Amino acid sequence: MHKKMNKNRANLLLSCQEKPGIISTVSNFLLEHKANIVQFDQHTTDPQSGTIFIRVAFDLEDFASSFMKLEQGLALISQGHAMNWRLSNENKKKRMAIFVSRADHCLMELLWRWKSEEILVDIPMVISNHPLLREAVEAYDIPFYHIPVSAETKEEAERRALEIMKNKVDFIVLARYMQILSPDFISRYPNRIINIHHSFLPAFIGANPYERAFERGVKLIGATAHYVTNDLDEGPIIQQDVLRVNHRYTTEELKVAGRHVERIVLAEAVSWHIEDKVLTHGNKTIVFT
Amino acid sequence: MHKKMNKNRANLLLSCQEKPGIISTVSNFLLEHKANIVQFDQHTTDPQSGTIFIRVAFDLEDFASSFMKLEQGLALISQGHAMNWRLSNENKKKRMAIFVSRADHCLMELLWRWKSEEILVDIPMVISNHPLLREAVEAYDIPFYHIPVSAETKEEAERRALEIMKNKVDFIVLARYMQILSPDFISRYPNRIINIHHSFLPAFIGANPYERAFERGVKLIGATAHYVTNDLDEGPIIQQDVLRVNHRYTTEELKVAGRHVERIVLAEAVSWHIEDKVLTHGNKTIVFT
Amino acid sequence: MHKKMNKNRANLLLSCQEKPGIISTVSNFLLEHKANIVQFDQHTTDPQSGTIFIRVAFDLEDFASSFMKLEQGLALISQGHAMNWRLSNENKKKRMAIFVSRADHCLMELLWRWKSEEILVDIPMVISNHPLLREAVEAYDIPFYHIPVSAETKEEAERRALEIMKNKVDFIVLARYMQILSPDFISRYPNRIINIHHSFLPAFIGANPYERAFERGVKLIGATAHYVTNDLDEGPIIQQDVLRVNHRYTTEELKVAGRHVERIVLAEAVSWHIEDKVLTHGNKTIVFT
Amino acid sequence: MHKKMNKNRANLLLSCQEKPGIISTVSNFLLEHKANIVQFDQHTTDPQSGTIFIRVAFDLEDFASSFMKLEQGLALISQGHAMNWRLSNENKKKRMAIFVSRADHCLMELLWRWKSEEILVDIPMVISNHPLLREAVEAYDIPFYHIPVSAETKEEAERRALEIMKNKVDFIVLARYMQILSPDFISRYPNRIINIHHSFLPAFIGANPYERAFERGVKLIGATAHYVTNDLDEGPIIQQDVLRVNHRYTTEELKVAGRHVERIVLAEAVSWHIEDKVLTHGNKTIVFT
Repeated sequence: MHKKMNKNRANLLLSCQEKPGIISTVSNFLLEHKANIVQFDQHTTDPQSGTIFIRVAFDLEDFASSFMKLEQGLALISQGHAMNWRLSNENKKKRMAIFVSRADHCLMELLWRWKSEEILVDIPMVISNHPLLREAVEAYDIPFYHIPVSAETKEEAERRALEIMKNKVDFIVLARYMQILSPDFISRYPNRIINIHHSFLPAFIGANPYERAFERGVKLIGATAHYVTNDLDEGPIIQQDVLRVNHRYTTEELKVAGRHVERIVLAEAVSWHIEDKVLTHGNKTIVFT
Repeated sequence: MHKKMNKNRANLLLSCQEKPGIISTVSNFLLEHKANIVQFDQHTTDPQSGTIFIRVAFDLEDFASSFMKLEQGLALISQGHAMNWRLSNENKKKRMAIFVSRADHCLMELLWRWKSEEILVDIPMVISNHPLLREAVEAYDIPFYHIPVSAETKEEAERRALEIMKNKVDFIVLARYMQILSPDFISRYPNRIINIHHSFLPAFIGANPYERAFERGVKLIGATAHYVTNDLDEGPIIQQDVLRVNHRYTTEELKVAGRHVERIVLAEAVSWHIEDKVLTHGNKTIVFT
Repeated sequence: MHKKMNKNRANLLLSCQEKPGIISTVSNFLLEHKANIVQFDQHTTDPQSGTIFIRVAFDLEDFASSFMKLEQGLALISQGHAMNWRLSNENKKKRMAIFVSRADHCLMELLWRWKSEEILVDIPMVISNHPLLREAVEAYDIPFYHIPVSAETKEEAERRALEIMKNKVDFIVLARYMQILSPDFISRYPNRIINIHHSFLPAFIGANPYERAFERGVKLIGATAHYVTNDLDEGPIIQQDVLRVNHRYTTEELKVAGRHVERIVLAEAVSWHIEDKVLTHGNKTIVFT
Repeated sequence: MHKKMNKNRANLLLSCQEKPGIISTVSNFLLEHKANIVQFDQHTTDPQSGTIFIRVAFDLEDFASSFMKLEQGLALISQGHAMNWRLSNENKKKRMAIFVSRADHCLMELLWRWKSEEILVDIPMVISNHPLLREAVEAYDIPFYHIPVSAETKEEAERRALEIMKNKVDFIVLARYMQILSPDFISRYPNRIINIHHSFLPAFIGANPYERAFERGVKLIGATAHYVTNDLDEGPIIQQDVLRVNHRYTTEELKVAGRHVERIVLAEAVSWHIEDKVLTHGNKTIVFT
């Protein structure tokens, strides 16, 4: 969903072990800090002994000083409850790096939504292992880095990408980036790398999903956006969708249908990540849409 | 969604004018009464000056006495904040009367979901202006009342229905009941009569929607479940859905497609009503799914 | 789609190697026999060297004698072109046996559509390895056979089922029948046994798909109707669909969502089979909807 | 669906009064001209007395001369049967003018699909009543004409547009063009102007559909692509689709959801028109997808 930027708006995400009074604690804390709650979302895996997840969007008057006090207060309160928490500020846009190879459909969808201000994010760079999309990216006045990758140069290529991104990037989107990232690289951006897989996972894990979908004669074509972990195609699923196909579709036409569902699924997942609507719990996500 | 009945589970629905601290007030109140919160949902029409809507599902130990105290406490607290509120107890099933005419598809869907315990509700009676479906209803050991309706007898027929339902019915489902209810009748069950309209409202308001859909050559057929108000087809929409059709469909085949979408849409709306997930705000609904 | 039975309506399904003039040959043949074509569908896997598939629905005057002549003519013509063909007559309903275990949702959907004349078929029997659903089936005046199955009695149980069905059954629907059929049994009804698998194949092949879907955190729940072959869960897919779910769904609630999509997917596949709209080609289907 | 251009491929669309033997006549004629049939689609409004619609895709060897002979033959044969027919040649791309105002989402979707060769079409020009999108269009090396329109200049503006398009344009797409075209203008491109309406027609005919959808509290947001006729919003519907929304969506967010469904619906309708898959029959379409 489109959001007008609100300079006084902040989002608090937190999770902790269930115990009585968490919601009270959080809402009282926000009230003390004069936060005006806009949206309050909650989920629990088990109300007795599970994990509770909370997202609160709220407005603050006198934002800069209030926000700092709130942050300090949260640091204190979270210690007592062993909370994981994260506080964001809509005024301060997240910085998204896009990794891409040769297919441009996911990239162009993200760039179009960015330019249309449907996603309020900064895009400091696009990184690609191919030079092909340089012009398309630079037309949007976004720096494009071509970092070729081969079996021998992979380690070096990742090192270079990390260096370029240093202090400039909050999360990464793999918009049909056809290289597998190393565990070391992934560990630098935990639950902050979003990939689009060209099938309805866990169907057609691995390579050539459309060829295999054609062979299997499926009646729906899907796509899956997920956070990247060290287990290929096994990270927490953020969003999935499908399109109906039929016996007339060639493999080539399945790929085209796939492109359409890929770009929508990826764009939705990216929006939710930007708006701090996604929390992870083990290998799963809670999405407060 | 299917819910196992939980004897200690209660649902609180409330709404009031926005002011600072409503969520704190509610969560502190529940904490004092040792309620263990399972699910907390909130919506506001405007965080500054709008109306806030809250739904909380929670468990109570020592249910009977705790519930009574909670109810008393709520009565007090709600006065101070001019709150509308409603407290329900999953242990005490709602009582649903079904009104039907001759088409059985919505009726049978509800009866099947009831028997399969997908909807936890009591069905004390089915009322029909036709005798046709008596056998189908009685096979489920549910009393069936045939109350014929004509222009002359309508007032009397409604009076009889109200009498039969007296103290036995919490809400009414019009499962393709082809009579228009009087304002007086509707006023007895405000926002507690659910109708299924055989189109994607506001398209094809009024009679013969499928004939008109055929003439117009639409590519999707829809259905709408809504609360009944005095403005025909204008009450708050609870749920809508569509099915894809094409040029091959005859009017008759559109009706069959319509039947399928009608029964799913109505059953979803009824589930949500039973589970206290629907609040109304003027002519609109908030549905905490 | 709903079809009024048409006493003069026949359906011709055929396939053969591509060569010039197949469509001419078929349409000229039908014209000679005064067939009035209602619907003509065609598909080719490759217009040069592939296989062509044709379905023609047509009306005949003086049906009984015309139909016989047509059948004789087809026998001749098909030899010359090495055609596979099948001619059906809407006047003569197909005979469908339903196999079921304990879950009744797919069974009840089929029985309701049958009674509502949405599917024009005869149901000479329901066979189950459990006695549970006897009453539900007999309420529709359909014979119910309880044939228990254990590892030791499986062969004998299949033999008994085949005997009961002898000369009475054209095709079989496994409406959540939880036994694996032997290759010998399957060979008696090639491409005439329809199964509903409780996942979006090829995801979650095998047992406990909903438990695994919960673990994997998928955002859509699916179901697949397919013809049964000796490769479990690998037969030609007839229809698939999905429902959206989210992080709130328990495994139990995923199963309920699954039930809803299963019964719709199976009912659609069964309709198409009854209306001779499905052809198979290796492990895939052509569905002329 | 994506189609690789095939130099030897032609599409024949025809319709006429039903009479025995139309399919034979057409298929025999194509066989005589050595056309290799790739796809044969047919629809009838009534097999006895209705109108029959046929689409045939076929390949010709020695294309140029064969195509001309075929065209001559068709002219003859169609006279005898009072056929409407249209023959197209994939080798010769259609020429599409895009009309746009200030919203760029539909325009950019079409340009992206065109550049990606998902739609095989020429775009000789974009015409706009605002200068805003000049740069975006010219970046694709497509001529952009700014023709301002006011109540007084409308006639003149249309005249200018017609002049610019003269002999250069086969059909027009109104990609959120916010001016109403005159009957005279429309009559120059009968069933060759495609509009995207920002609602699920016939719901919310007229202005401000999203504001009205917000007021009405609908649960789905739709879009409709249709051919333009003199009756505003009443032309033959080519495609429709919807997206699910909920009580959280503001009017602004409904518009964003609407943008997403608009561009997909319009792009599908345009693809089908380009691939000669759409026939009209009075106020309805037959779409051979």
